[in-house]
Amino acid sequence: MNTIQVGIIGLGTVGSGVVQVLQENEADIRNRTGCQIRIKTVADRNESNLQAVKGDVIRTKRAEDILTDPEIDIVVEVIGGIQPAKDFILEAFRQGKHVVTANKDLIAVHGHELLAAAKAAHKDFGFEASVAGGIPIIAALKESLAANQFTEILGIINGTTNYILSAMVEQGRDYAEVLAEAQKLGYAEADPASDVEGTDAARKLAILASIAFNSQVSLADVYVEGISQITSDDIRYAKELGCTIKLLAIGKNLAKGIEVRVHPVILPTTHPLASVNGVFNAVYAIGNMVGETMFYGRGAGSLPTGSAIAADIIHISRNIENQAAPIHCTCYAERQILAASEFISSYYIRTSVTDEPRVLASLASIFAEENISFASIIQKTKGDNKAEIVLITHPCLEARLREALRKAEAYNKVQLIHNVIRFESGLQSGSLS
Amino acid sequence: MNTIQVGIIGLGTVGSGVVQVLQENEADIRNRTGCQIRIKTVADRNESNLQAVKGDVIRTKRAEDILTDPEIDIVVEVIGGIQPAKDFILEAFRQGKHVVTANKDLIAVHGHELLAAAKAAHKDFGFEASVAGGIPIIAALKESLAANQFTEILGIINGTTNYILSAMVEQGRDYAEVLAEAQKLGYAEADPASDVEGTDAARKLAILASIAFNSQVSLADVYVEGISQITSDDIRYAKELGCTIKLLAIGKNLAKGIEVRVHPVILPTTHPLASVNGVFNAVYAIGNMVGETMFYGRGAGSLPTGSAIAADIIHISRNIENQAAPIHCTCYAERQILAASEFISSYYIRTSVTDEPRVLASLASIFAEENISFASIIQKTKGDNKAEIVLITHPCLEARLREALRKAEAYNKVQLIHNVIRFESGLQSGSLS
Repeated sequence: MNTIQVGIIGLGTVGSGVVQVLQENEADIRNRTGCQIRIKTVADRNESNLQAVKGDVIRTKRAEDILTDPEIDIVVEVIGGIQPAKDFILEAFRQGKHVVTANKDLIAVHGHELLAAAKAAHKDFGFEASVAGGIPIIAALKESLAANQFTEILGIINGTTNYILSAMVEQGRDYAEVLAEAQKLGYAEADPASDVEGTDAARKLAILASIAFNSQVSLADVYVEGISQITSDDIRYAKELGCTIKLLAIGKNLAKGIEVRVHPVILPTTHPLASVNGVFNAVYAIGNMVGETMFYGRGAGSLPTGSAIAADIIHISRNIENQAAPIHCTCYAERQILAASEFISSYYIRTSVTDEPRVLASLASIFAEENISFASIIQKTKGDNKAEIVLITHPCLEARLREALRKAEAYNKVQLIHNVIRFESGLQSGSLS
Repeated sequence: MNTIQVGIIGLGTVGSGVVQVLQENEADIRNRTGCQIRIKTVADRNESNLQAVKGDVIRTKRAEDILTDPEIDIVVEVIGGIQPAKDFILEAFRQGKHVVTANKDLIAVHGHELLAAAKAAHKDFGFEASVAGGIPIIAALKESLAANQFTEILGIINGTTNYILSAMVEQGRDYAEVLAEAQKLGYAEADPASDVEGTDAARKLAILASIAFNSQVSLADVYVEGISQITSDDIRYAKELGCTIKLLAIGKNLAKGIEVRVHPVILPTTHPLASVNGVFNAVYAIGNMVGETMFYGRGAGSLPTGSAIAADIIHISRNIENQAAPIHCTCYAERQILAASEFISSYYIRTSVTDEPRVLASLASIFAEENISFASIIQKTKGDNKAEIVLITHPCLEARLREALRKAEAYNKVQLIHNVIRFESGLQSGSLS
């Protein structure tokens, strides 16, 4: 039986998870793979992280000891961030090694450069763990559902924001209060910006959309809005409409181009994604043959992410055993990325108006001028000659919605437009040309 | 670019789906696979099925024309049933061909013989489509989650029964009425036995459990109960308990052996499987590293099943291109199959009793003698000196439950035990030794 030698750079949450998965499930992995996968060397700057690794393993503070070791077949990069992770990966390919990583920051920006380096070196590059932790969504899109053209992907791919929104919905509490609690519990970081502003989800969406639509999508292509503007009032109205609020990563493969966007969405509770709560993640993908599919599981954490990295290691080990060529970059299409003004969506608009006859009719005229009509309307008298109106539009072009909102703001009976949130009906809206 | 030649035996619902998937998505499949996958020959006894196939394809009524054609690389068997399907597949391996099938009837009984024949011939044998239609659960268990030991799988893997139970729950209607409607709509067959009695789900569970637990499980090993005993009364009580009723296929990998069983289950509405409704399928799998995962999609139908078969064809084509060895049978463990008397479960027991003081206390004593206690109790006076009592037990050994039920039936204040249904808390109950 052959032995495949692995070197792991980084022993933080993810790296220590990889070690645990490979060591605890060693016998099953050996039986399934038909070869011995052995951790030869681990590298970390922190001595106590090194000492925490059990077994007959070389411990080093220098990544170079892994990168230049001719016996090591697979390098696992789990230090995160752009540099020096990028240089380590490029050097690993130059040294003729296969690479596995969980580094979404890096792949969402430099993914295509790294895939080109892998191809030039004839080596495998696994990054299943970079999106949705333990959920094997990349393998599903690239392999198990490879006979489909994907029209749409919708993902809950950030656990922090899903935890916060779930708690706001379940307990009727306010954003700031739940965020503070999430930070105390370790579900949100001290600086929560990249989670709550949607950047983390946008990185993962760039990776998912590139694979699903076979066309390059980078972080900069993704339109992003976070969840900090969602109030308990919005959540109350969403419930009244039979809906919940989620931060969704949305990719649509339309006739005129690709939509990629991360923003809060009002979603009917009957949609399969609506019951994905707490720190769980899920990706909902629609293929033109398979129809609706959903993949659900833990989107983060030491062992779920370790499971995904170990799956890539197993896959590469089987390829090494078989002397099989890896699957390289699958971006064979060159599709245009649509600007936000070209998005088509329904919208929830919550506004305070002067409580007078004909105000709603005037608002309806303003929207009708932009060819926007309403699917439903809630109006509530608030006293003090004030009313709150919630409008749900039929699908319309975002550019025209913005123009209508500009006009509505200028209308002297509109006191305030509190919030505008996109609305997903859950019906299949994407279609290929 | 190489061409991989495919022959399809059978042009029913599934076979015609395979043709459509390969033809309509041909360009994407070619770009992703790096080779041309070409349907060379289709075989069917029915002339109009043959004529319905478009394009430059050989049409024949003789399966032998495919099996003995030296140019054909991959044989797709989609005629279903045990014979002649089994002989065709064995002959295909003898002729040096790879085989793809959706034939659950065959694999659930003769799977290991067929896998042995594939191994002897050094050929691939793909059967992703045999379980849960378009959902890529076999690839997930064998490859993407290969770094896990699976403690438990729970599946909704029969669309007919899920459609019937969903309609009973949503509309409060009775079993016979909904079944008749399902037959009219084509969701249930004229002879619905193999669906409603659980056999179809049991076949798929045998396949899933063999893969997840790496130990041979055949149809005959699976304990089966169907849904025909479920009444609208049971559904009303389930709702009162915050639950729904599903036909689940359950596999547990326990210290003392493997539990494999298909039966109705009362399931909390908060469980991810509870919102899998209508003809959709889902498989919930718990791995010791990844934790809870769920895979959701269409479990049947021409195109979803065609998508799964096409995925196997793509996978094998990549292996042919790479001259890579296939993954053969993964049943390297030999685990014992537990008898039903050894199952551990919670139970819902609905009974009519004489409405007198101390009846409930006496019932509790009868169960306590078998070391069974209750998690909750609902008692309702029904008039005529009659009360209905619903008992939910804590987890107990099935042998002891049966003994307690025997004693309860003999107790003269018990008029009738209407129904006994297993109860899943949704908590992780399986654990490895």
